[in-house]
Amino acid sequence: MINTLYLPELREMLSADNVEGLRDFCEAIHPARAAEFMAGLSPSESWQVIEHGKMEVRVDIFSFFGTDKQYEILASQPIASVASMVAELPPDDRVDLLQELDEDRLAELLERLPVEERRDFQRLSQYPEGTAGAVMTTEIAKLSESLTIREALNEIGRQSENYETIYYLYIVDEVDHLRGLVSARQLLTGMKQPETPLHQIMDTNLVTVDVMDDQEDVANQVAKMDLLAIPVVDNQHKLLGIITHDDVIDVVQEEATEDAHRFGAVDPLDESYLRTSVFTLTWKRGIWLSILFFFALLTAFAIQEYEAEIEEWVWLALFIPLVISSGGNSGSQSATLIITALSRGHISLSDWGRVVVRELIMGLLLGTGLAAMGLVASIFFVPASETFLSASLFVVPLTLLLVVICGTLTGSVLPLLFEKLGWDPAMMSTPFVAGIVDILGILIYFKVATLFIV
Amino acid sequence: MINTLYLPELREMLSADNVEGLRDFCEAIHPARAAEFMAGLSPSESWQVIEHGKMEVRVDIFSFFGTDKQYEILASQPIASVASMVAELPPDDRVDLLQELDEDRLAELLERLPVEERRDFQRLSQYPEGTAGAVMTTEIAKLSESLTIREALNEIGRQSENYETIYYLYIVDEVDHLRGLVSARQLLTGMKQPETPLHQIMDTNLVTVDVMDDQEDVANQVAKMDLLAIPVVDNQHKLLGIITHDDVIDVVQEEATEDAHRFGAVDPLDESYLRTSVFTLTWKRGIWLSILFFFALLTAFAIQEYEAEIEEWVWLALFIPLVISSGGNSGSQSATLIITALSRGHISLSDWGRVVVRELIMGLLLGTGLAAMGLVASIFFVPASETFLSASLFVVPLTLLLVVICGTLTGSVLPLLFEKLGWDPAMMSTPFVAGIVDILGILIYFKVATLFIV
Repeated sequence: MINTLYLPELREMLSADNVEGLRDFCEAIHPARAAEFMAGLSPSESWQVIEHGKMEVRVDIFSFFGTDKQYEILASQPIASVASMVAELPPDDRVDLLQELDEDRLAELLERLPVEERRDFQRLSQYPEGTAGAVMTTEIAKLSESLTIREALNEIGRQSENYETIYYLYIVDEVDHLRGLVSARQLLTGMKQPETPLHQIMDTNLVTVDVMDDQEDVANQVAKMDLLAIPVVDNQHKLLGIITHDDVIDVVQEEATEDAHRFGAVDPLDESYLRTSVFTLTWKRGIWLSILFFFALLTAFAIQEYEAEIEEWVWLALFIPLVISSGGNSGSQSATLIITALSRGHISLSDWGRVVVRELIMGLLLGTGLAAMGLVASIFFVPASETFLSASLFVVPLTLLLVVICGTLTGSVLPLLFEKLGWDPAMMSTPFVAGIVDILGILIYFKVATLFIV
Repeated sequence: MINTLYLPELREMLSADNVEGLRDFCEAIHPARAAEFMAGLSPSESWQVIEHGKMEVRVDIFSFFGTDKQYEILASQPIASVASMVAELPPDDRVDLLQELDEDRLAELLERLPVEERRDFQRLSQYPEGTAGAVMTTEIAKLSESLTIREALNEIGRQSENYETIYYLYIVDEVDHLRGLVSARQLLTGMKQPETPLHQIMDTNLVTVDVMDDQEDVANQVAKMDLLAIPVVDNQHKLLGIITHDDVIDVVQEEATEDAHRFGAVDPLDESYLRTSVFTLTWKRGIWLSILFFFALLTAFAIQEYEAEIEEWVWLALFIPLVISSGGNSGSQSATLIITALSRGHISLSDWGRVVVRELIMGLLLGTGLAAMGLVASIFFVPASETFLSASLFVVPLTLLLVVICGTLTGSVLPLLFEKLGWDPAMMSTPFVAGIVDILGILIYFKVATLFIV
């Protein structure tokens, strides 16, 4: 969505080199809004605009630009001015961005970063995408437990620019082992006894995550415990960084969109819909359509086995879509329920017995319901000459019952199996389940038909 | 998932009335963990345990219980002790909980709440579910702009227990119109000039939401702007409450799960999978399975029109599943992409032209790809006697091309149409799109077949 409201004015101010006007634009409105208003400008125009804001604002607006525009600016604008802004970016965002640059440009930029920021990049870029380490920020308030409340307040007053959040202060020993947490709320309410040492008020009962933990599990933890930030530690309980609430929201949204895409048989996009090229999209859909095409081809093989039967009882063909969709839909339902429950932490592997029994009962109930409707449909569609041979009437109902049970069991067991094998159950996407159930459905259908009619 | 680690000890302590042990359990571990350990206890046992903790801890642990257990406790435990805890709950959670009680019990409880909390409940319970008003909390730090930094610090030191967050302080005039925001960070860094009045440092450039705004839009705003909390105002810009980051994460997770369920043809659950009874689940799935059953029945009607053709060219039946699944899957893909992009705010209605053009191009590309595969399949499956009449070979490929285009267009236009009509596009769930495309696919298939072969 491009907001064109300010575009003509911005372009005019740029061409007139209206320093004051551009500075006002950068500093007077919320950075997220400013970035939105610049969506219609080229990366280079946008950069010229924000260079008029002071560094703090420049960094803020830049971080609200789309990632495309961000890369473009880093890749093409004068290296010196870009580098001084990159040095001010939050470390987690900086890593994500720099990793996309080509090697030469990256080397040039790193050279111009202060030592500490360069080392930080090298450390953070080691963690694989999707781990806590790759999302965490290292700009945290680490304090010694011997400080008093007054000293702590002075310290954060001085340092606050360098911390991503000053609302949680982490207490560490001399070698950075995490000992406890003091919140800004505690400091503010404790101001009446300013000489109290931090170790007297700190909370030692902390929830931490390991630097290699999956980002989705971390997000679930933070969400469950309503935390503002969660500390990330290594296996020696050394404090490496924190993951803050805004990163958690990003992770939750990202994972939810990825899962939705998988459910819809689209390979997850790296960018938003309109920013992804038609060819990338075609590719990400094409892989799945092809896989599902081959599943459907297998049904053609299965049906071919029964061509003689279809020739004799043509009405059998009428119900092919009904059988397939009933099985596929009940399978998708189960898979969706189990995958979302697993990813929200509402069920775990140890619940598998309960899950399978519940799905079996639901399969029986839903299958019986559909069978009843199928019986009515059979009375309409099965030719009168055959309805006297009452067995024909029961082919579709019985098939529907079996196919729905087959769907609920396949849809619940496959994601659990994936979880057991340590794979992401969302990979066992619902269309995949539906594809498998389709084939089974056709086989059940014609098996039942030949048993009953022939 | 029930953690049974502490269960025997807890039960033993309860029966021995071990006051000290139970207090320790409540106060020594993180409230979220404590609630987890009590998952295996009955509501009444759980209540007996947490009554041993001090009020603050009791409220914390209680708020981590499952909603079932919470209702059960409110409905069945001694009214006086329950009421004193309810008075301490965050106002937004309190409203959600109390609304589930039966009228008599609710009246009894409200009677025992302090006046302010009672009035708060009456105000908050007016806002319909899913609006900003229904999620917001009213426990906010409202300060006058004439206060100095020192006075503000003293004020929040005194009041902090009563505020949901003290990290954002809202500046209002005499009649509660929102004037600006001062963050605790600003106060802490401004401590060196303690006599500075707040109006000199406050940020007046605020992002607010209306009390009747949709909670999903609010969540998107907070996520986009990385806010800790967002103020909720009425149409006179009066400050009514705030929505904090943890509520936003809940909303994002809740909406994502709801959408996933809709995509999977399940009416969204009010509770987690294992907490929802098998009968409720069967009902929520059954509605959709029945709707989709009727769609599939329509395909039976469509196929019936062509029974004579199938009798003559039985191989046509082989490709029914292939045609249906190709159309349905490409339709689901488009619907998924468009619905997720709309709900994340990545596209808006004004993009409809671009979206349709992109989907048309993708339909052409994907359709051509599948058509090529369909041609190969035809060579295998169409009987040799007919392959000389080369037209038969092109029935399936041409159908696939048309069906995929039909799928991408239906899948993109229907959600946009729903958005245009002001309905939730996620209601136009992907299985619904697939159902419609199934029927169109069958019609296209036999139309093409009769044109080419007859």
